Amino acid sequence: MSSHTVRIGLLGHGTVGRALVALLDRRGAAIEARTGVRLEITRVAARSPRPAGDGSLGADRFGTDPAAVVAAPDVDLVVELMGGVEPARTLVMAALAAHKPVVTANKALLASAGPELYAAADAAGVDLLFEAAVAGGIPIIRPLRESLRGEQVRRVLGIVNGTTNYILTRMTSSGADYADALAEAQALGYAEADPTADVDGHDAAAKAAVLATIAFGCAVRADDVAREGIRGVTAADIAAADRRGFRIKLLAIAESHHDGSVGVRVHPTLVPLGHPLAAVNDAFNAVFIEGDAVGELMFYGRGAGGDPTASAVLGDVVDAALNLRVGTSASIGALRPARIRPLDDAECAFSVQLTVADRPGVLARVAATFADHGVSIRSLEQEDAEDRAHLVFITHAVAESAMRATLADLADLADVLSVDSVLRVIGVV
Amino acid sequence: MSSHTVRIGLLGHGTVGRALVALLDRRGAAIEARTGVRLEITRVAARSPRPAGDGSLGADRFGTDPAAVVAAPDVDLVVELMGGVEPARTLVMAALAAHKPVVTANKALLASAGPELYAAADAAGVDLLFEAAVAGGIPIIRPLRESLRGEQVRRVLGIVNGTTNYILTRMTSSGADYADALAEAQALGYAEADPTADVDGHDAAAKAAVLATIAFGCAVRADDVAREGIRGVTAADIAAADRRGFRIKLLAIAESHHDGSVGVRVHPTLVPLGHPLAAVNDAFNAVFIEGDAVGELMFYGRGAGGDPTASAVLGDVVDAALNLRVGTSASIGALRPARIRPLDDAECAFSVQLTVADRPGVLARVAATFADHGVSIRSLEQEDAEDRAHLVFITHAVAESAMRATLADLADLADVLSVDSVLRVIGVV
Repeated sequence: MSSHTVRIGLLGHGTVGRALVALLDRRGAAIEARTGVRLEITRVAARSPRPAGDGSLGADRFGTDPAAVVAAPDVDLVVELMGGVEPARTLVMAALAAHKPVVTANKALLASAGPELYAAADAAGVDLLFEAAVAGGIPIIRPLRESLRGEQVRRVLGIVNGTTNYILTRMTSSGADYADALAEAQALGYAEADPTADVDGHDAAAKAAVLATIAFGCAVRADDVAREGIRGVTAADIAAADRRGFRIKLLAIAESHHDGSVGVRVHPTLVPLGHPLAAVNDAFNAVFIEGDAVGELMFYGRGAGGDPTASAVLGDVVDAALNLRVGTSASIGALRPARIRPLDDAECAFSVQLTVADRPGVLARVAATFADHGVSIRSLEQEDAEDRAHLVFITHAVAESAMRATLADLADLADVLSVDSVLRVIGVV
Repeated sequence: MSSHTVRIGLLGHGTVGRALVALLDRRGAAIEARTGVRLEITRVAARSPRPAGDGSLGADRFGTDPAAVVAAPDVDLVVELMGGVEPARTLVMAALAAHKPVVTANKALLASAGPELYAAADAAGVDLLFEAAVAGGIPIIRPLRESLRGEQVRRVLGIVNGTTNYILTRMTSSGADYADALAEAQALGYAEADPTADVDGHDAAAKAAVLATIAFGCAVRADDVAREGIRGVTAADIAAADRRGFRIKLLAIAESHHDGSVGVRVHPTLVPLGHPLAAVNDAFNAVFIEGDAVGELMFYGRGAGGDPTASAVLGDVVDAALNLRVGTSASIGALRPARIRPLDDAECAFSVQLTVADRPGVLARVAATFADHGVSIRSLEQEDAEDRAHLVFITHAVAESAMRATLADLADLADVLSVDSVLRVIGVV
């Protein structure tokens, strides 16, 4: 087999970019032996020039103008690792317009402009591949795009943010409160100095939008995702969940309904210990899929880090290079416009913790308030403490709107001293 | 997008074949809307004619001659669900020679004749896809073939036989012995009347050969796989493992070594409780992958059953149909000849249970026997009972040949009344 060279222009030379250069140095010969494709990084756009070069790349390959890399005649394929929506969007569109395939790890870009970019790639007849954009090194996009093409996917449940999973795991294993676990994650480099994107669920919401788009074939954007982060999760929540046989995880949840609508949300969630997602700890990610025919699937691995992410990028690069050689490309197919089901109509079980006055008839009045809104109780635990009692309810599945109305009425009851915690629960019907 | 019809010839109309017909009835329209490909089953070769038809398929589509289906001018793509090596091999070769892509779920065929078939598909320039051949509905072949193409895969650990995993799970949860758990699996339809293929590891060995071939890019066959089944696993083994924090699983293990050799084996294995594979229960399957860059991945789901398997087949059919439309095909790439590392040279930790006479110096003599062969002890537990003692050793990793020599010498010691159990252990260095 005679080899065919594909020349790569790399946009971005941070952690993942440097890991990709090193990985290609290590694996390039084996890839060429197996596929007949020789991959060569001809140009790199870095934030600052790096005259020292990097691995096999001489200083002459480095520049600071990503648009020049995209336009260069000695670049056949573009790898975008800059992050953020602009200028990444403009650069990717320019590459596709020039019939250059693009591999990207940029979930923010795809959650904002994905549908336009997929259409542009289809129109140009070249690949736009993005395995690394969701759950780092875990192959999840390709299985959803290709392996499950015969499947009616009903629900996707993902632990797709390693930072928050690390924080919640530490809170569970050590009893630490949120602030201490966050500080520890920051000290270890798992969390940024400004942790907003992670702990408020923005990162997970972008990934949820990408997963929902691919799983359901309709254009979901980050703005369509209902979002609640983990700042409000307390050590007491974790301990109470543990006593009842649950772990608390920040889940990205995408559901398709029989009326064709889709609901996408991110929130802390009680996951029963027997569920495979409950055992996904530390900075690991996992995506759990429920399909009509295939049943339950889970994909587990490292969701971040230079090497795992570079591995996913390189897999895409080889695929795009092979397709380029024969003049074909993968397509995610026709996307329907998404009909987003409002969060109010989403159905979920809830865990509700209340502090109430310890006097006769309290439980009856509280239970009646749930019943007034059609909320059915699955379990109740009561702890007495001096003149007050602590109640923990787990409900059956109920519409968010009904739960909200219930909580408003509970807060108005004279018996209810405080609503201490409201968390959603999966694995309870 | 105007639709393109791809006409399917189906060989085999058993559980998976019928599930495929039903799934295509349900999902055909959605697949056409998304991809522009209309899939139509034009001919079915069944063991006996079925004049009643099946779902949307009239009786006129059924026949009993699979070769006629392969050769028919109104068949563009062949789905082989007959199982067994012949006549499946001849039929698949004929289809490929006629430039018809083939989708198969036949692990026995691939473990016996895979490399020839892959080469024939490459030569004909059409797809030979087989996601359903390993771990049923779980997308594992495609991720290995494509997503991990940039990766140096070091080790694949698989729970790839649902029957034995069900039996071992029951033995663990109920304390049942092997015979009772097998009888229960047979009553539930999880095990055949003749369970040999499952319990002696033949089925897992075929899947291990396919996984090793794809993961390492070299031609591994079922005969290359060292194999030990679960008939010898006792309730006492399960209980002893449990006390030490392990589950016993039948693992398919494929390892690539730095000298380019590969070792592939199937045996009951102690898996530490913290390992993701330890939580894979009942008839579920999982494949755990260790790669240089990507780290640890796991793929989990239903490894058998009509619907999950049909889902994997249909995903492959859509892929092959799309490739057929544009005249391209996927290739597993050039395969090296496999250099198989003999089992004697494989390194593994062991759990060894001995019954010894309870007299002074026994432990020293037993320990010296391990030491004589360079086998290092990681942990020892001793239980006294009347005039004898029960010893449970877990070793550090050691070559199989050294362990075999150790066991021979232990059996010769006058102090050793019996060697009760020898099992391999993972997760111990």
